[in-house]
Amino acid sequence: MSPLNFTHILTQAVDELSESESYKGLFHQHKDGEPLPSAKVLHEIIELTRSILFPGYFGNSTINSRTVKYHIGVNIEKLFDLLSDQILAGLCFGTPKEACTPSTEKRRERAAHLAAKFISGLPSMRMILATDVEAAYNGDPAAESYGEVICCYPAIRAISNYRIAHELLELGVPLIPRIITEMAHSETGIDIHPGAKIGSYFTIDHGTGVVIGATSIIGNNVKLYQGVTLGAKSFPLDADGKPIKGNLRHPILEDNVIVYSNATILGRITIGRDATVGGNIWVTEDVPSGGRIVQTKAKK
Amino acid sequence: MSPLNFTHILTQAVDELSESESYKGLFHQHKDGEPLPSAKVLHEIIELTRSILFPGYFGNSTINSRTVKYHIGVNIEKLFDLLSDQILAGLCFGTPKEACTPSTEKRRERAAHLAAKFISGLPSMRMILATDVEAAYNGDPAAESYGEVICCYPAIRAISNYRIAHELLELGVPLIPRIITEMAHSETGIDIHPGAKIGSYFTIDHGTGVVIGATSIIGNNVKLYQGVTLGAKSFPLDADGKPIKGNLRHPILEDNVIVYSNATILGRITIGRDATVGGNIWVTEDVPSGGRIVQTKAKK
Amino acid sequence: MSPLNFTHILTQAVDELSESESYKGLFHQHKDGEPLPSAKVLHEIIELTRSILFPGYFGNSTINSRTVKYHIGVNIEKLFDLLSDQILAGLCFGTPKEACTPSTEKRRERAAHLAAKFISGLPSMRMILATDVEAAYNGDPAAESYGEVICCYPAIRAISNYRIAHELLELGVPLIPRIITEMAHSETGIDIHPGAKIGSYFTIDHGTGVVIGATSIIGNNVKLYQGVTLGAKSFPLDADGKPIKGNLRHPILEDNVIVYSNATILGRITIGRDATVGGNIWVTEDVPSGGRIVQTKAKK
Amino acid sequence: MSPLNFTHILTQAVDELSESESYKGLFHQHKDGEPLPSAKVLHEIIELTRSILFPGYFGNSTINSRTVKYHIGVNIEKLFDLLSDQILAGLCFGTPKEACTPSTEKRRERAAHLAAKFISGLPSMRMILATDVEAAYNGDPAAESYGEVICCYPAIRAISNYRIAHELLELGVPLIPRIITEMAHSETGIDIHPGAKIGSYFTIDHGTGVVIGATSIIGNNVKLYQGVTLGAKSFPLDADGKPIKGNLRHPILEDNVIVYSNATILGRITIGRDATVGGNIWVTEDVPSGGRIVQTKAKK
Amino acid sequence: MSPLNFTHILTQAVDELSESESYKGLFHQHKDGEPLPSAKVLHEIIELTRSILFPGYFGNSTINSRTVKYHIGVNIEKLFDLLSDQILAGLCFGTPKEACTPSTEKRRERAAHLAAKFISGLPSMRMILATDVEAAYNGDPAAESYGEVICCYPAIRAISNYRIAHELLELGVPLIPRIITEMAHSETGIDIHPGAKIGSYFTIDHGTGVVIGATSIIGNNVKLYQGVTLGAKSFPLDADGKPIKGNLRHPILEDNVIVYSNATILGRITIGRDATVGGNIWVTEDVPSGGRIVQTKAKK
Amino acid sequence: MSPLNFTHILTQAVDELSESESYKGLFHQHKDGEPLPSAKVLHEIIELTRSILFPGYFGNSTINSRTVKYHIGVNIEKLFDLLSDQILAGLCFGTPKEACTPSTEKRRERAAHLAAKFISGLPSMRMILATDVEAAYNGDPAAESYGEVICCYPAIRAISNYRIAHELLELGVPLIPRIITEMAHSETGIDIHPGAKIGSYFTIDHGTGVVIGATSIIGNNVKLYQGVTLGAKSFPLDADGKPIKGNLRHPILEDNVIVYSNATILGRITIGRDATVGGNIWVTEDVPSGGRIVQTKAKK
Repeated sequence: MSPLNFTHILTQAVDELSESESYKGLFHQHKDGEPLPSAKVLHEIIELTRSILFPGYFGNSTINSRTVKYHIGVNIEKLFDLLSDQILAGLCFGTPKEACTPSTEKRRERAAHLAAKFISGLPSMRMILATDVEAAYNGDPAAESYGEVICCYPAIRAISNYRIAHELLELGVPLIPRIITEMAHSETGIDIHPGAKIGSYFTIDHGTGVVIGATSIIGNNVKLYQGVTLGAKSFPLDADGKPIKGNLRHPILEDNVIVYSNATILGRITIGRDATVGGNIWVTEDVPSGGRIVQTKAKK
Repeated sequence: MSPLNFTHILTQAVDELSESESYKGLFHQHKDGEPLPSAKVLHEIIELTRSILFPGYFGNSTINSRTVKYHIGVNIEKLFDLLSDQILAGLCFGTPKEACTPSTEKRRERAAHLAAKFISGLPSMRMILATDVEAAYNGDPAAESYGEVICCYPAIRAISNYRIAHELLELGVPLIPRIITEMAHSETGIDIHPGAKIGSYFTIDHGTGVVIGATSIIGNNVKLYQGVTLGAKSFPLDADGKPIKGNLRHPILEDNVIVYSNATILGRITIGRDATVGGNIWVTEDVPSGGRIVQTKAKK
Repeated sequence: MSPLNFTHILTQAVDELSESESYKGLFHQHKDGEPLPSAKVLHEIIELTRSILFPGYFGNSTINSRTVKYHIGVNIEKLFDLLSDQILAGLCFGTPKEACTPSTEKRRERAAHLAAKFISGLPSMRMILATDVEAAYNGDPAAESYGEVICCYPAIRAISNYRIAHELLELGVPLIPRIITEMAHSETGIDIHPGAKIGSYFTIDHGTGVVIGATSIIGNNVKLYQGVTLGAKSFPLDADGKPIKGNLRHPILEDNVIVYSNATILGRITIGRDATVGGNIWVTEDVPSGGRIVQTKAKK
Repeated sequence: MSPLNFTHILTQAVDELSESESYKGLFHQHKDGEPLPSAKVLHEIIELTRSILFPGYFGNSTINSRTVKYHIGVNIEKLFDLLSDQILAGLCFGTPKEACTPSTEKRRERAAHLAAKFISGLPSMRMILATDVEAAYNGDPAAESYGEVICCYPAIRAISNYRIAHELLELGVPLIPRIITEMAHSETGIDIHPGAKIGSYFTIDHGTGVVIGATSIIGNNVKLYQGVTLGAKSFPLDADGKPIKGNLRHPILEDNVIVYSNATILGRITIGRDATVGGNIWVTEDVPSGGRIVQTKAKK
Repeated sequence: MSPLNFTHILTQAVDELSESESYKGLFHQHKDGEPLPSAKVLHEIIELTRSILFPGYFGNSTINSRTVKYHIGVNIEKLFDLLSDQILAGLCFGTPKEACTPSTEKRRERAAHLAAKFISGLPSMRMILATDVEAAYNGDPAAESYGEVICCYPAIRAISNYRIAHELLELGVPLIPRIITEMAHSETGIDIHPGAKIGSYFTIDHGTGVVIGATSIIGNNVKLYQGVTLGAKSFPLDADGKPIKGNLRHPILEDNVIVYSNATILGRITIGRDATVGGNIWVTEDVPSGGRIVQTKAKK
Repeated sequence: MSPLNFTHILTQAVDELSESESYKGLFHQHKDGEPLPSAKVLHEIIELTRSILFPGYFGNSTINSRTVKYHIGVNIEKLFDLLSDQILAGLCFGTPKEACTPSTEKRRERAAHLAAKFISGLPSMRMILATDVEAAYNGDPAAESYGEVICCYPAIRAISNYRIAHELLELGVPLIPRIITEMAHSETGIDIHPGAKIGSYFTIDHGTGVVIGATSIIGNNVKLYQGVTLGAKSFPLDADGKPIKGNLRHPILEDNVIVYSNATILGRITIGRDATVGGNIWVTEDVPSGGRIVQTKAKK
């Protein structure tokens, strides 16, 4: 086949792929000056936030107690700029065009307002993350220092992203929270929906395969192992056979619960305070406080 | 120890590591002008293909219905160039040198031909991916829009890579299909062998830990949850104790099957139409149409 | 809200986040000229080591048997420089400042010494990795060549990083080994602690969700499937309720053991030579040589 | 001196350099969302414009007559986005803050309007640049093809930048035109002020050291050699001893003039049609049409 | 003006700029797989060649006498690959399509052959460059070491590029030599045509504005200062008024000539052995051996 | 010629180029951990210093008077780190190995000490650069604002680099000052030797081709035009015919001198206060205060 024929095949594919019928539903028509949130910039935002929360551990700069303020100052200012832009980019996403009423200028101000609110919440976010670091250190005999936990543990990465995303979701920012938790999902194999509510001193060991659904509620001092699912049992459909969005369908784990590896807990059930759920099992009913549930014996 | 001694240690290591005995079987001697396929370029190829299939969602460009054709045109042309080169790079891989007979010129033309064929299949690939997006949206009460599904859901990334890789495998392109599905495996924790056959409206929830083996067959409208394995039970060995390659050893899932998290389905068995497989179980025998199989009760 | 107000909010957040009380325990004060090990440079170190061990497969250069020595020479020299710096960066990590006594010059020399020792061990590391490649090829009917295994199989990436990290740990290098195995964990979903001891001809199929704890011992010719955990059952606490570090708490797998997907093996138990552990089960007691343990039947 | 002392010296320098007295007149306080034009983005804008004007020569893409439109389409859209942003960034530069009255929204629209106007002028800019290419080719016996001239000749780069900058200046865009001609000055040693007026078939041989002042007027078919200055003789000062801005102070070169290397032509004088100015001389008076002026004989 | 109107303006500009009439003569239609030589890759080629010729000074690697061979080996191999590709890219440039007859395969082999020949000439190129370094050091009282000369002196950069380009021109490589000398022209302000013939121990002080024409001949041990032109006086035109290409029109400078700053020497004249040409003068006639020519006295 | 033959040619070139005889005098053998100063890092150092001296104009960050201190703080700390490393890299350059006596630790401390001293001089460097900006603005009727001068004028770039380099030279830092002024030379065509002494309110118009020699002395309020040379007339040779280094050989320009384009002033002569030197002339004798010297009339 001659080169010209290749050009012919290519231009025909271009024609077919450019027909509006062909890309219906799969096409994002950008409104002016409002591209989609960028995965690359959100990644930078996460890096910046980490470097602000854990000074000296992220961001590759040498730093000491007399200069830490300069670094935090520059990073906060940069975070504000990038986050304002990304929030603006996401604000009308998924909203019918006509409903996205206020002027660009208003949306721009609103985006800046949300970014500033997020930043003013960072000091308390740092406080709760400090409890997560402590829990990870205390929960793992192999951990050698807080520093090692902050540097290396996937749980800290996943929980940081979750806490950032949850805060943004609470502020009403669309789309971006989910992108941020999926970034951690890809990096760590831990999938925490930004809608979940999670207390302090939370930790996950190893973590690959953990799933925490959107309406899960987790108390303080809870520990999960790899492969644990907090999922929905099934969900009611509407008249069209589509799932009804938004009902409470994931488990509640009260304070001090431990769930061992690969356990699957499904539905709006409650695992009571101090309870233990064994590995590789399937739980669809409440477990009382202090309860302990394990797999039936394997046969040899 | 003085610096000179370090140099001595290093040059000795160089000598040992450069002896041909030492790297036997672990060395890829490039034929002229034919390097290995490059992971970096294949990554770019995937990004390009995604930006063609889902215009406006990937590739970071602002775009509207009047300019979409320019973008698709440029991306198709670039995809053709990059893909031709990568296919050429992979064509003789694993083939004994003497058997890789045709002239470079012939191979170059064949690579271009395969790349053009792949591109001419993109319109129908987009059609089937549209059904996957719809299935993911309908199957998840937490999904807020098609756009969110396309942007964030790991299942869409993994299934896109699979459908691209499967198409290339069908065209007879070696090595590259596997690299492409392993890229998605690394990104999402979902491991779909490019040889599997998968129908329309396919979706995977959460996805980490899913394994779909090379000879699996999956019907339309099938849904898997995280941690599901469609694997081989065991495989016959040849006279030398090596596994016999290529026999049919993975399950068949008929239309409308649902498999819950961490279920393991092994061997050339059939899960019949409309059947449901519960979580955390181990299935090695056929399940009839409409059947339902679950884990034995855990003990408290 | 006016821009000035935003500036006010931001500078207040900077003030709060810069108070030393706020970042206590989450701050890494760098000693002079000794930043933390850099994830980016360690990534480069892994790429360099892979390109030395498997010449022609990594590092994107064309190479042939007459020029292989130039490439290995340059790569070894670069590896020595980068690794010396990173080891130096990690040497005092986690050590109380006063205890990190020797002069910078001494530490610098020690770091170079350790890097050189690591490099002089590469020829034997290549020998054992060759057995791992062979095991992966023989263990997977879908594998088409050694080359495909080296290029694409996540197991090879995870095991390479483990062997590199284990060697560094044995040499007494702190922190870096753990970062290196977590890099593979993120890339492949396979979490092998650098402290584990693993024999030759080791392979892992698919791999996502595999966890191998710090005191695990694995013999020769062992094969694991995805989702397998070699974990600790529970660990003794000290008087303060903190876990006692360092005791032997993970399983021993003797030669020729196979463990199927999602099995969980916990505690300092022994799975005897030639034994088989079935999928999705929970094992907390010894399995004798040649034994076979499987899940209880699911109910339909 | 101990590290702490260094920190002390550095923080003191920071304090001094941050006092507003110290940076008065040297500080650019950004208005919200309006950074300065970026040299890096302007560089990209020039590259894009060159790739649109001379398709196939710049921008590194393979291209043919059937796909040229895709490339120009994408490049024009990108140019529009980047240029709108840069014009916006420059619009209030140098204007007292209070005078920069219209709302951001208005300025944003005005910037887009100017960018669109610039783009609609590109077809005629290409026509005049084609005459410059022809003049360079015809004027140099060493030139081997139009292609070589477009690829390599510094004159083409400098004149392209000038014609782009002049167009922007005519549209009333501040600051950016000067940055663009200074970019060419740095790249080629040819310093053409964007305010100069230059006819068709213009060329400069070699070019290093050429200076063409802001109020110069150059006819058609003029050729300059390296080191030629079209400058101001002296300029009137105002009551404060500051130069009066904006009066006509540079030469007029009529059609078909040739000026040889290192000649200096100063003041609002006229070099008449078809005149020739010899090298290394200093001209401050009119030269009549067809005139010829040369250096006095050197002595041996 | 509404956004839609902008889109309208842009698409109209795209249409006009894509008409073949509009880009006639300014368009480079690529032959298949044969893009233009890339300025970026040629830049890399120059860096590689410098790092081979002056080991340790360029290329940022630490290096010592025991490892220098590894570095040169890798750099030579990379240079061969890049240069072969670039020569191939340039081979048919400027040649009418039908005349560029041999098959791609043949051209590819020819390009590799030329690259190999160039590389086999590097040892003698290094020898002559060593004399240039010595001349620069001896000729400048401010020079403190050979190393400083190699690192910093623009003359060395310009002369290196010239010697590389001249060698390629002698081998018959089109286009690339000119791009390489223009790269040095842009970097240093020194414009040496690759066709010039230049002896050993050549140096240029400061250098900005120096022009050395295509048919210049320069003996051994010659020194030029900044702003010196070796140019053509005028050139004969053919019947169509186009310059006749290729006749000898630039000066000959015999051994040991010195030319001071901003002197202009024009036409096929000879500046005899040991002669001196003063600054700021215009020379169009022979200067005898040992002669000395200076500017007429300035008046005060 | 077969590929193998190419390999043969290449390896032979490698052998020749790796013989120590071949690279004698052109090879820089690095001492351990002490690479050459890096052009790339020095470029970054210049960018950092510019962004500290002219806050908001360089470095692409948005900045306001409340956050300027954070930015300067971070930039100063980074500058200190980079500059310490580069000074260390240059400290023993050109020094015979045995003479470079103090321990690495001592040299490292000395480098940090010099970097800190340089930084503590930045506030006064900013003060003098402010006068240069004012002079450029007042001296050019085309200048529209201080901001435009800081952003675009090559003179400001060249003079900034000179003032930085001169300061480093005064502190006794080897090699680096020259690299820094050559960077400006390449960027602007203005070649100022770091050894020159230059007063306040200094400006250069256009600038290409200006040369200011190592022992030049320039008073306050001096203005040069493009192509001006302040050079050496000739220099005494020692017994071996080598130039004697270090004697005073360049001109002195007293306060308020103006030198027009392409004038050449040579030797240790004095151009007196308020004197004017016309363009394109050659001056080798003193000019008295208030004197005025111009070119002899050209002949028509």
